[in-house]
Amino acid sequence: MSTYRAPLRDMHFVLHELPGFASVRKLPGCEDLSADLVAPILDGAAKLCSETLRPLNRSGDEEGCALENGVVRTARGLADAFRVYADGGWASVSSPQEFGGQHLPHAIRALFEEMICSANLAFASYTMLIPGACAALHAYASEPVRQRYLPKLIAGRWSATMCLTEAQSGSDLGLVRSSASPVSDGSYRITGTKIFVSAGEHDFTENIVHLVLARLPGAPAGTKGISLFVVPKLLPDSVGRPATRNRLLCTALEEKMGQQAAATCSIDFDGATGWLVGEPHRGLHAMFAMMNTARLGAGMQGLGIAEAAYQDAVRYARERLQGRALSTNRRTGAPADPIIAHPDVRRMLLTMRAYVEGMRALGQGVAQEIDRHERHPDAEVRNEAGEFLALMTPVVKAMFSDLGSECANLGLQVFGGHGYIRANGMEQYVRDVRITQIYDGTNGIQALDLVRRKLDGGRLAQRFIAPTRGFLQVAASEPGMSEFVQPTAAALARLEQVTAWIAGADRADPEEAAAAATEYLRQFGLVAIAGMWTRMAAVALPLAEGPEASFYRAKLRTARFYLQHLLPQAEGLAQSILAGGRALREFDAAAF
Amino acid sequence: MSTYRAPLRDMHFVLHELPGFASVRKLPGCEDLSADLVAPILDGAAKLCSETLRPLNRSGDEEGCALENGVVRTARGLADAFRVYADGGWASVSSPQEFGGQHLPHAIRALFEEMICSANLAFASYTMLIPGACAALHAYASEPVRQRYLPKLIAGRWSATMCLTEAQSGSDLGLVRSSASPVSDGSYRITGTKIFVSAGEHDFTENIVHLVLARLPGAPAGTKGISLFVVPKLLPDSVGRPATRNRLLCTALEEKMGQQAAATCSIDFDGATGWLVGEPHRGLHAMFAMMNTARLGAGMQGLGIAEAAYQDAVRYARERLQGRALSTNRRTGAPADPIIAHPDVRRMLLTMRAYVEGMRALGQGVAQEIDRHERHPDAEVRNEAGEFLALMTPVVKAMFSDLGSECANLGLQVFGGHGYIRANGMEQYVRDVRITQIYDGTNGIQALDLVRRKLDGGRLAQRFIAPTRGFLQVAASEPGMSEFVQPTAAALARLEQVTAWIAGADRADPEEAAAAATEYLRQFGLVAIAGMWTRMAAVALPLAEGPEASFYRAKLRTARFYLQHLLPQAEGLAQSILAGGRALREFDAAAF
Repeated sequence: MSTYRAPLRDMHFVLHELPGFASVRKLPGCEDLSADLVAPILDGAAKLCSETLRPLNRSGDEEGCALENGVVRTARGLADAFRVYADGGWASVSSPQEFGGQHLPHAIRALFEEMICSANLAFASYTMLIPGACAALHAYASEPVRQRYLPKLIAGRWSATMCLTEAQSGSDLGLVRSSASPVSDGSYRITGTKIFVSAGEHDFTENIVHLVLARLPGAPAGTKGISLFVVPKLLPDSVGRPATRNRLLCTALEEKMGQQAAATCSIDFDGATGWLVGEPHRGLHAMFAMMNTARLGAGMQGLGIAEAAYQDAVRYARERLQGRALSTNRRTGAPADPIIAHPDVRRMLLTMRAYVEGMRALGQGVAQEIDRHERHPDAEVRNEAGEFLALMTPVVKAMFSDLGSECANLGLQVFGGHGYIRANGMEQYVRDVRITQIYDGTNGIQALDLVRRKLDGGRLAQRFIAPTRGFLQVAASEPGMSEFVQPTAAALARLEQVTAWIAGADRADPEEAAAAATEYLRQFGLVAIAGMWTRMAAVALPLAEGPEASFYRAKLRTARFYLQHLLPQAEGLAQSILAGGRALREFDAAAF
Repeated sequence: MSTYRAPLRDMHFVLHELPGFASVRKLPGCEDLSADLVAPILDGAAKLCSETLRPLNRSGDEEGCALENGVVRTARGLADAFRVYADGGWASVSSPQEFGGQHLPHAIRALFEEMICSANLAFASYTMLIPGACAALHAYASEPVRQRYLPKLIAGRWSATMCLTEAQSGSDLGLVRSSASPVSDGSYRITGTKIFVSAGEHDFTENIVHLVLARLPGAPAGTKGISLFVVPKLLPDSVGRPATRNRLLCTALEEKMGQQAAATCSIDFDGATGWLVGEPHRGLHAMFAMMNTARLGAGMQGLGIAEAAYQDAVRYARERLQGRALSTNRRTGAPADPIIAHPDVRRMLLTMRAYVEGMRALGQGVAQEIDRHERHPDAEVRNEAGEFLALMTPVVKAMFSDLGSECANLGLQVFGGHGYIRANGMEQYVRDVRITQIYDGTNGIQALDLVRRKLDGGRLAQRFIAPTRGFLQVAASEPGMSEFVQPTAAALARLEQVTAWIAGADRADPEEAAAAATEYLRQFGLVAIAGMWTRMAAVALPLAEGPEASFYRAKLRTARFYLQHLLPQAEGLAQSILAGGRALREFDAAAF
């Protein structure tokens, strides 16, 4: 039976032993967040995830959800679990206090999100969009809308969706056709059909708040003619209670590869009443407040599944007896050794571990920048943090979701044939996590975003490269650090070279840079994780002989494994990128 | 709606335009196989696969199979399709003529097998083990057993299984506990429970022939005490008609990630009657005649799914309109371009194409060596071919099945969110192909087999390296070939260097080589496919201005893409391998 234990020791490490969180604690409202105060929060989250959400993961996959006359029945136990989640205050962890939230830093929310995704990814599909919706409403909605919706969402009484995609409009939101016509009372009538709406209809909450992209009359074509509307399933009455059924209906649930317990809905808006959020025609701008949160969330989903798969794979590799160890660790008096003794199994486990802990540290670093971006008193620091976030959001989204799939598949492989059997849960990880590489912008779109919008001719890449180089220069003089610093510095220099090439290519011909985008994003991600491993090694090195020697030695050894065996992929990618895009471009579309 | 068209033009290319098949046609029994004679065979196979097998692929996935009282009901249409398959003579394509087969070369069977796997992988699970079972019985069974079973199997009246795995015995067959006790009439009573038996029970054929590993009384422990038995579901009467129910029963069907229409069975042998195949305690030796065929077959499965996913992805990329092309190919008067115009989509398609055509060419080369191994009059040539096969079998099995999964996932990614929806069939490819990386020996086991048994201190690697180097030396002087020869030669030299390191490491400490096995196998596979691309380029180059210019130019451009953008992975792998296994080995099992 697959179980989940939150990796609290490593979460403590990335939060309190890596240097970043110390400066978050100097931000307004974060001053009290000592390790002693944070620990019970994380313990509570761990308990919720292990005891309430995890036991519903397999049964939810088996049961799925059902649609009858527009009503979605979710799998047994999930609605009750959502109640536990909301009543425990978990829906409001990082939301503003003025609307009832706890306003904890994103640094802490990121750890909690990882746990939820590890425990039950389908459940997370009902919760993870809510903070982003709150952020979008908080930033762009009118005061009455904020007052009406935010307290309910933050209390977990209502839930939220993003209604973007239409049949003809997926990656290209400029093709959205849903329309909004103004009504004299200031509201709008929304008409159109949205698909792929996560948590679009369910029985968790008394109301569902849809954030819908649609066009106003006479709006310009393309992305500059799209507006954002808040469209509740039930229209609130004068005191804000959900009262009248709005003119919208869930007409279908998608049959998907995975996340069977997640209700992925088609929703018909048939003159539904909604209210404008933000300025007319600037809907994508407002939606992106939500989308960027969703993208980082998709990255956390990759990390969460990778951690869950790692835990199960380690447990299985310790228990499963097959074959004799080649030279060491051979058990006497037994016909076979645990497969964890075999180098190739250890390679798979250590690969997962190195990616998981690297992602966790990097994800933590990015979450801390959200806190700095939102709270720092100095506008210049906020701006720098914002630029770093802009740069890293596509990297985290695409790299973490790709690695989530890779780690889930490695975990399945450790189980061998038993990994292919549904009851063991490994194949569910593979199916569940696969969509994270696609939704909230496919990973190809993320790569284009990085290369074509976020690099800014290479300038913005320095928001990552410069501080990493600075750290490496200092760390290089520490005794014992050169084996970590040297490969990281070499890979960073190569990344800088490739970045300059990409920026030049993009100026000369955008197709040339676009052809290399996916490989560049992966190279960037590999080097970013290498930077975190070197930072972790620097913390662990002086402690490797102390009272927790086994923990810190494992850190150093995992760092070594990552830098020696996983980081070298980056060189192959660099060679491929620098070969240029000609081979890709000269291939006739008709010849495929 | 997903369809499949056999890639007959490319199959013609690898069979008749690449040089290898010309020498197969000089082998005994192959003299008549002109292109004109082969074409209708492949056309017939293509028709069977497109028209009979393919339409049952999605419905089989939806319907699965059901077990009631030991009887398996397969999905609608599959049993009839098997009848069409058998009646068309496809079960006996390469089987010996003395037992009713057509004895066509494996070079042709390989192309047919690819088509079946593309069209309906679950269906292939019922057919692909039959030729291997025939080979094992032909080579090791007594004459009465051969006479009784081979004609029925070759005619497709009976089917065959491999019963190896037990709950405690998967990768480690030395742990097999099933027992066989001799009976005075020369038969044996087989007792034990086998799991993961593909096509272990079904309604396709009037009888099922199980090849079962079990231990004789007093057998030595481990792999040297295992014998092979033929155990029919129905015991034949004196004239060979299936008559009496044997004491064996299908007790469970596995619920799996994919291949839902494939019956993966647990079978209880409860004193079932069987007959020894081959010598006592030498069962693994006999089984490996079947296993090596199965391993190459698993590779073909990866290729087949990669081709199918490629076809669907190309079709979708031509039809789906999203976003504007960056600079070229922009359609005027339309709001969006087909996504095939986008460089990142082309990257995915071209990656799939380069792997697919590279695998097809390499698989063809390996199949031709089976023919040489079986038919060549000169024992030394047969021996050399056998050594090449021994070397390449793990490479084809693991590399092709890995690439099958990669290509299926790329195809899904081209579809975006629509790839995650069951009805579009892309996610079925991902689920169906995933097991090919596991069964018939996990890909980790293949890598160990390559490194620890097949390299033979590096000597056997020369069976691949030496002829490839020879070809490159000749090709280097051809005008226009240097852009293909140069990167391939560099990668080959690097492979030779790493091979020497691996061989040395294995002598010094087997764990060191084992730690690098998976990466080495992939490096080997990448270089082997590069060798085939350079051979293909050499054929295509002089024809690139001729009447079929678009075909040959596409070959050259795909070769260029492979060598510039996919082969560079090999350098990252080499760096990782040469870093040594210390990081892997020093990590305590307890610290995971």
